Amino acid sequence: MTKPLQDIVIIDLTHVLAGPFCSNTLGDMGAKVIKVERPVLGDDTRQFLPFFEGESAYFAALNAGKKSIALDLRAPADRDIFERLLDRADVVLENYRPGVMERLGYGWEDLKKIHPRLIYGVVSGFGHTGPEAGKPAYDLVAQARGGVMAITGEEGGNPVRVGASIGDIIAGMYLTQGVLAALVQRDREGYGAKVDISMLDAQIPIQEHALALASTTGVSPVPTGARHPSITPFSTYRAADGFFVIAAGNDALFVKMCNAIGRPELATDERFVTNATRTANVAVLKRKIEVATLEQPRDHWIEVLEAAGVPTGKLQNMGEVMQDPQVLARHMVVPVKPRPGGGPKFMASGNPIKLSTMEEITVREPVSKLDGDRAEVLAWLEAAKGETAR
Amino acid sequence: MTKPLQDIVIIDLTHVLAGPFCSNTLGDMGAKVIKVERPVLGDDTRQFLPFFEGESAYFAALNAGKKSIALDLRAPADRDIFERLLDRADVVLENYRPGVMERLGYGWEDLKKIHPRLIYGVVSGFGHTGPEAGKPAYDLVAQARGGVMAITGEEGGNPVRVGASIGDIIAGMYLTQGVLAALVQRDREGYGAKVDISMLDAQIPIQEHALALASTTGVSPVPTGARHPSITPFSTYRAADGFFVIAAGNDALFVKMCNAIGRPELATDERFVTNATRTANVAVLKRKIEVATLEQPRDHWIEVLEAAGVPTGKLQNMGEVMQDPQVLARHMVVPVKPRPGGGPKFMASGNPIKLSTMEEITVREPVSKLDGDRAEVLAWLEAAKGETAR
Repeated sequence: MTKPLQDIVIIDLTHVLAGPFCSNTLGDMGAKVIKVERPVLGDDTRQFLPFFEGESAYFAALNAGKKSIALDLRAPADRDIFERLLDRADVVLENYRPGVMERLGYGWEDLKKIHPRLIYGVVSGFGHTGPEAGKPAYDLVAQARGGVMAITGEEGGNPVRVGASIGDIIAGMYLTQGVLAALVQRDREGYGAKVDISMLDAQIPIQEHALALASTTGVSPVPTGARHPSITPFSTYRAADGFFVIAAGNDALFVKMCNAIGRPELATDERFVTNATRTANVAVLKRKIEVATLEQPRDHWIEVLEAAGVPTGKLQNMGEVMQDPQVLARHMVVPVKPRPGGGPKFMASGNPIKLSTMEEITVREPVSKLDGDRAEVLAWLEAAKGETAR
Repeated sequence: MTKPLQDIVIIDLTHVLAGPFCSNTLGDMGAKVIKVERPVLGDDTRQFLPFFEGESAYFAALNAGKKSIALDLRAPADRDIFERLLDRADVVLENYRPGVMERLGYGWEDLKKIHPRLIYGVVSGFGHTGPEAGKPAYDLVAQARGGVMAITGEEGGNPVRVGASIGDIIAGMYLTQGVLAALVQRDREGYGAKVDISMLDAQIPIQEHALALASTTGVSPVPTGARHPSITPFSTYRAADGFFVIAAGNDALFVKMCNAIGRPELATDERFVTNATRTANVAVLKRKIEVATLEQPRDHWIEVLEAAGVPTGKLQNMGEVMQDPQVLARHMVVPVKPRPGGGPKFMASGNPIKLSTMEEITVREPVSKLDGDRAEVLAWLEAAKGETAR
């Protein structure tokens, strides 16, 4: 089968997380990703912990299968190579601070004159417009300023960081969407586009509930721990061997839950008869549920609750996720091939986009060393000489 | 300007969050979204709090600008309308439990015989394959079982839910990406595709760091509150009027930070000279930083830290985010027009995908009442009679 992005060429100047996350997804769908790194050090994340057999497992998680070439974009010989890459490119991705590419002569305004069908995708802390265009940001800054930390944490406690780096990742996902939409448009209309994604912007659509609340009531929501602020029971509960969740969103499910955990008397307790009274008495209800659930392990409760039709699930750490039969059946944790001649065999995420037109990814291509594909990339450019790109 | 997805028609059977989040993004990029709702009640979220002038602001946040028609897919007259919609559709989206569409006669295997160019996008709790295909899930179940709760929360405390509904939203974003890639492929190759997204699957790629750690060290990471587990200072700090973040990722930035907050002696304290010693003494360092920062408001510290080149930012709640000048300059919070003849004027998120080929969205189209566009949709079908779709 042909992959959806077969023959699409991505010249990827991005480093760290948001940009490489985007090109990883595009690569999964068949694009050829040529990662252009700075000489000597390459992408910062080649030095990020954890290491495995002398190489960064963090870098591997985001960059397996990409071709690496190291180029100094101020050196004439390397600029020549870069410009030959641009001749073959469908998409250029970069996450420099605004102005850097312009000073190199490779800003969008310059490039589009020579490459009118090129798609130019950028991700930055605050975007390329507005009073703070050009300021750097980190995941933590985007999470803090964008509002998500203010709704994450223990009830009555301090805001905490979302454990996943969603300040970067949501922005990287929007970059992917913008690039793909621009490809659809280019194939129809014949012209490329600049896609300008801001990490701060990207935090806002994902808080649809907080925005609806703040804009209609004037009151901003606050952290509510593991529970839903207005549905009860809808939280984590303790079993004998760890946490699991119960999501009993209405009165009928609550009655089923009470019976399933062997506490039918809770269903008729006047403190718990409606969702409103359950929410008003959430702490005492939680204690009463846990008196029951602490007696047996999670698997027991999940079995009886599922049999009763009550939505439930284990709270798993990553080690448990990696052993989850459903995760494994969907190939969501896959090995990375070692390089020919030797290199670490990492594990990485699978491809979450399951397409009927594409073979499942069950193993990832190797992680390239810095500049490890220079000869291959140059040979590919040479072979393509004379062909019309795009 | 032509929008990237101009003339693309989406028949959207999804409800609640993941699916509507996807069609909202596709609509922002120009697709025509026809929301097919069940009669009488429509999308569940039409009943979700908060309400504003008698209508759900939650529903409005995700569905402004979509056309609504109520159809009973078991009733012959409505099935006829639905099939005429399919004749015009580029994309069908649904989030029923697996098997529901098949029983209605509208499963992918049936539809692709009649509509070989149709793209069929589905999002479900666990996907359409694997031992748990078909089980329902909620955001809380995906967050718990997918691992993100196990790395979110206070240090040494209990796991908490990510305040944004990323169990649904990440899956919705992958559905958007899959549909767009399938559109690229269809325009090139001539055939449609089924896109099968699982909420559980979608949680795994976003935990690139946890997966790298667990797979190489065998140890699963745990919550670390607001701070980075291995970089210091990289956390929230208290100012006189609230929290802000400092992200001083190396020794040089730490020295700049100490000088900027008027505590140069911290930079030479042997407990804080390297990142490793700062991380080992993170609690005492935090107290010493806050002795200084509690004396002045956040704006003061952000000004002096930015002047010193130290990455920083306010921790904002949604009310503050909605007033942030950079957010406003990028049109990331926009009004929703009232319906002709009257209806609430909501606020909603702007479009985070800024494309040079598309006008900025500065106001959203009205929120339709359930079945409110029936006549318009039928007239559109009538006018298109005889035209060749796609």
